[in-house]
Amino acid sequence: METTIYVCLALVAFAAVITLGYVFVLFRKVARLKLGNKKVEELQQYIHGGAMTFLVREYKLIIPFVLGVGALLAILGFIPAFEGADGIGWQAAICFVIGALFSATAGWIGMSIATKANARTAIKAQEEGMSGALKTAFGGGAVLGLAVAGFGLFGLVAIFLAAYFISGDVSFPVQILTGYSLGCSLIALFARVGGGIYTKAADVGADLVGKLEAGIPEDDARNPATIADNVGDNVGDVAGMGSDLTESYVGSIISCLTMALFSFGSVFNSYKFLLFPLLICGIGILASVISAIIVRSRNWKDPHKALNVATYIATGIVVVASVLLSIFFLGEWKYLLCVISGLAAGIVIGFVAELYTSDKYKSVKQIAKESQTGHATNIISGLGVGMKSTWLTIVCLAIAIALAYFFGGGLEAGGYGISLAAVGMLCTVGITVSVDGYGPIADNAGGIAQMAGLPEEVRGITDKLDSVGNTTAAIGKGFSIGSATLTSLAFVLSFIQAANVQISLLDPCVLIGILIGAMLPYAFSAMTIASVGRAANKMVKEVRSQFEKDPNILEGKSVPDYNRCIDISTKASLREMIAPGLLAILAPIAAGFILGTAGLGGLLIGGLVSAIMLAIFMANSGGAWDNAKKYIESGEFGGKGSSTHKAAITGDTVGDPLKDTAGPAMNILIKLMSIISLILVPVFIQVTPLWEIIVNFFSTL
Amino acid sequence: METTIYVCLALVAFAAVITLGYVFVLFRKVARLKLGNKKVEELQQYIHGGAMTFLVREYKLIIPFVLGVGALLAILGFIPAFEGADGIGWQAAICFVIGALFSATAGWIGMSIATKANARTAIKAQEEGMSGALKTAFGGGAVLGLAVAGFGLFGLVAIFLAAYFISGDVSFPVQILTGYSLGCSLIALFARVGGGIYTKAADVGADLVGKLEAGIPEDDARNPATIADNVGDNVGDVAGMGSDLTESYVGSIISCLTMALFSFGSVFNSYKFLLFPLLICGIGILASVISAIIVRSRNWKDPHKALNVATYIATGIVVVASVLLSIFFLGEWKYLLCVISGLAAGIVIGFVAELYTSDKYKSVKQIAKESQTGHATNIISGLGVGMKSTWLTIVCLAIAIALAYFFGGGLEAGGYGISLAAVGMLCTVGITVSVDGYGPIADNAGGIAQMAGLPEEVRGITDKLDSVGNTTAAIGKGFSIGSATLTSLAFVLSFIQAANVQISLLDPCVLIGILIGAMLPYAFSAMTIASVGRAANKMVKEVRSQFEKDPNILEGKSVPDYNRCIDISTKASLREMIAPGLLAILAPIAAGFILGTAGLGGLLIGGLVSAIMLAIFMANSGGAWDNAKKYIESGEFGGKGSSTHKAAITGDTVGDPLKDTAGPAMNILIKLMSIISLILVPVFIQVTPLWEIIVNFFSTL
Repeated sequence: METTIYVCLALVAFAAVITLGYVFVLFRKVARLKLGNKKVEELQQYIHGGAMTFLVREYKLIIPFVLGVGALLAILGFIPAFEGADGIGWQAAICFVIGALFSATAGWIGMSIATKANARTAIKAQEEGMSGALKTAFGGGAVLGLAVAGFGLFGLVAIFLAAYFISGDVSFPVQILTGYSLGCSLIALFARVGGGIYTKAADVGADLVGKLEAGIPEDDARNPATIADNVGDNVGDVAGMGSDLTESYVGSIISCLTMALFSFGSVFNSYKFLLFPLLICGIGILASVISAIIVRSRNWKDPHKALNVATYIATGIVVVASVLLSIFFLGEWKYLLCVISGLAAGIVIGFVAELYTSDKYKSVKQIAKESQTGHATNIISGLGVGMKSTWLTIVCLAIAIALAYFFGGGLEAGGYGISLAAVGMLCTVGITVSVDGYGPIADNAGGIAQMAGLPEEVRGITDKLDSVGNTTAAIGKGFSIGSATLTSLAFVLSFIQAANVQISLLDPCVLIGILIGAMLPYAFSAMTIASVGRAANKMVKEVRSQFEKDPNILEGKSVPDYNRCIDISTKASLREMIAPGLLAILAPIAAGFILGTAGLGGLLIGGLVSAIMLAIFMANSGGAWDNAKKYIESGEFGGKGSSTHKAAITGDTVGDPLKDTAGPAMNILIKLMSIISLILVPVFIQVTPLWEIIVNFFSTL
Repeated sequence: METTIYVCLALVAFAAVITLGYVFVLFRKVARLKLGNKKVEELQQYIHGGAMTFLVREYKLIIPFVLGVGALLAILGFIPAFEGADGIGWQAAICFVIGALFSATAGWIGMSIATKANARTAIKAQEEGMSGALKTAFGGGAVLGLAVAGFGLFGLVAIFLAAYFISGDVSFPVQILTGYSLGCSLIALFARVGGGIYTKAADVGADLVGKLEAGIPEDDARNPATIADNVGDNVGDVAGMGSDLTESYVGSIISCLTMALFSFGSVFNSYKFLLFPLLICGIGILASVISAIIVRSRNWKDPHKALNVATYIATGIVVVASVLLSIFFLGEWKYLLCVISGLAAGIVIGFVAELYTSDKYKSVKQIAKESQTGHATNIISGLGVGMKSTWLTIVCLAIAIALAYFFGGGLEAGGYGISLAAVGMLCTVGITVSVDGYGPIADNAGGIAQMAGLPEEVRGITDKLDSVGNTTAAIGKGFSIGSATLTSLAFVLSFIQAANVQISLLDPCVLIGILIGAMLPYAFSAMTIASVGRAANKMVKEVRSQFEKDPNILEGKSVPDYNRCIDISTKASLREMIAPGLLAILAPIAAGFILGTAGLGGLLIGGLVSAIMLAIFMANSGGAWDNAKKYIESGEFGGKGSSTHKAAITGDTVGDPLKDTAGPAMNILIKLMSIISLILVPVFIQVTPLWEIIVNFFSTL
């Protein structure tokens, strides 16, 4: 047994190291491409500088949080009652810091390459056409995607190896790894929320003054907020999305390990159930590297096809490998079906998102049609599409959960099955994030091409890349909601088992927990939406004042002060992310102390379902409005400049904070609340909840 | 004991009869007021005729449903396994038909008086000024409100009396009364959903062509859809709202009776716990009559004050009476606190709704301010306000649930406490609906004054009445959400106890049930919103074609064909209400057969929280947009006709189907699903769910 464990862990660690090696090589390859165009280089440096400045300041702000939470975890461990509790103790605290560090590093590398690859994609589009541009953009995305998977997996396996080596016991590594997961969650919280506010403040602010007041096109170098807008794409869709999926990836594996211990801890050969998800992830990461290499080695004309092939290759490899692994390693074919049900659900949910947000299908066309009768009908129609889109997504998730539970072994190990499905969905995260991360790079490339005045055909190529990127972004959003759901669900199940509590609906604390839990996503969304509004307002004022002070800017004779706009977005997003961040962290803690573990369980499940619904609704409404506008711009229903187009712009603007700020933040909210609850279970068990104290006090009267 | 039961029931029945007597007197008093203006009389007859035609056709459509469901309940009763089950059997079937009949009758009376009082309010405004107009409008509302309470309570107590007389057992009446509750629910379903679609199809259709294309003001007699719009106000806000609250009222009492049997069935003097809620309602209904008489006997200058006084008088009487009842009749003071916590929560939730939807407070002002930057910021801001408004409402509900549960007696009888809170909230429904029903009458009065060209000062009075009506409508919406929540919650708790099932979150059927349940309100909303869109489109085409065929209409030289527009709205709403209606009825049945009782329990609780959130969000966003528009029209931020005003109109139009169609339908959805589940529990217990069959099948492979 011991040898098998060491060999398997070493193999997985090796796969992660190979991946990181490829990340290093690919990074250098993309970064070393020559730009050879002064204007492009200048713009690239603005964006790169702005993005990195934001990251530095964000990380500086997070450091005290990380150290504080780490210290708390360590201190709690010295209280005898909490000894050996999951995620508590100085060892878990170290894992926590490593998790935060690795997640932050992956984000750093991703941002760094994305803000280099953007300009290089534009130049390559000019020099080599579509295939060169695609290679570069996808290369940048792959650096992000594989860094996310590589760092996430490497840290996890390295900790597992070390902890197993020290303790000689498989349950110890799992215990302290919960801290690792929390580290990734904390980074994800700030990166997603802060990034979401940054990107939309800049975007909405730039559009409101630029497009509507000054009448200059999007991505026009005369607009002082345009660089901030481009930085925002990276801050939100690269760093934010990357850290979100790092969290889901790491979380799904760790909840699977926790579930394996719960369910099979006493079974002969139980360690194999621990190694199985790790091996699947090892194969998944290699499959991602292989498919990235294959896609980059060919000359593609159709970017959509190239990205699909990337996904299919990785998926195919994983399916074959899981068949072999489950039969020959685990000796039980049925767990294979859990993995595949997750993998399939991830792909189908992505397709459902496309169905409701792509102009190839009738929903988006319907919104475009209804825009003819004005702004209001455009909005109503989009809200309807978002609401309608929930049903297929939920049915798909429900089927995956049912299958995973059933094949996972029912009552005894159904939770293991569900977390295996999450692992199945996320094991190819390397390639999923590559495909997803390609989007903002292509978007930025288009912006740079426009601002630098590159030839028309370059913009044509980047536009094509960008429009494919919009579809992959919608698919990616569906995927991240689906994976966050399964991961959180697995955490909630772990929480219930760890708390050893009956969550009965006849318990008022549970009812109240469910109600409050279901309300939190709404409150959280309202906060982030209001934040975007405030920050965008500041941006509007700054842009207006620059235009007023120096009329030469609008005539293109003097360069606007990009840095002030970047600074406004940076400051605003960092300030505005604190309040919702604290809400996400403090709500489960307060619930645990006030309502007890059962009430907290209610809060988690109420929050989970409410957040998923809002997330799907907001993501798909937003995506559908965006593409309805693009559909009209392609010449339908009057085309650009028509009143129909104006109505569609309204929908697009409304959708922006929904789909890029509030919606994605839902994923973080539910994952973070559930992991915090899981870690603090032993504390809550020890403490008498306030509710009980009050009830007892009144009963003695 | 027997004597006490008979005396108490007779007293409550007597209170209901007195109320119905007052309804009769008041109806004649209002209906006999002379109109004496030919144009006004003509318009009134159009609206009255259209409304009654709609009701006749709606009821015709419902009859087969009622007979079908009644027959099913009767037939199921002959299967030995279901004998004595709540709501099943021929006796319950008769109660079901009576419930449907009484609820329909209350709706009929309400519609009848509302479409007479509207014109009379306008005339009284001309003849006697504010105080006469207010008396008439409030008189109409009181006929509706007291009919709702009177018929609901009379039917319930009469059945109780008869069934107790026949069986000599208090549990038998409670069993068959569940059928009575279902009867009210079925009428409410069709009245709310059909009414919601009718009113907004007419409203949006009239506005899109009239205001935007033809440039004529609202309520202009030249607009063919304007009468349909006025009919719609009655169909939606009078018949729909009335049947919604009848259902909540009856449902809360019956769930309280069910809970009393569960919790105290074996306790000495347990019958007092059954009589307590009935007595509270008896006092509540008398209090409503008294406060209606007091309000009508004075000459008010400030309508807002008059309506507030009405609420306070009734509330005060009920509080005093419950103190006396709980101490001297029940002998347990603590149940008093359950009643009061519900009563207080109802008022506070109403106030929270006002806080977010009245232009006296900052949320609406903020929306108006953000409308300056266009349609998109108006929409985003309104969505944010709706989301934010959930938190205070939910916290308030949570506190009420906690108090009611605690004082209700904790684990043994907490469910009784929660349903007592629902009864406390609803026992003054007579006056709540009076205040609420006054709104559409005042609104119609304004429309008629405008169309008939009555003097400017008449319109001034009706405008003032109408603006107060908007606030009471928002408060009423908050109240109906709150009461629907407590009522459904009580039903769900009854369901869980009747099914005798553990709803464990570790059960995949429960998880799947919760997910599907949370999705249903979104699907239901998407359906009703789409229905409004389709019906409004038909209306737009009809109005356009009338304007085209006869250009004299727009010049005021020939009368448009109002009836064709009424016909379109009627047909469309009746057709469009079938699909969502079936979804609400079939979803819990399908869940019971596929997932079993535990899964169905999950579906109910998932549906409950998701529906409440959406209902609060949609009601308050819609109300806030509406008043932000009115605030701008009062001269702020540029006033009428400014671009800010145009942006605010967009928000108002978007809010219409949310607050008047999809939002209120949420109440019905959750109440109907939970009562159907409660009734069918014995069936589901007997049948092996499909999920289990599949699992067993695969397990034998």
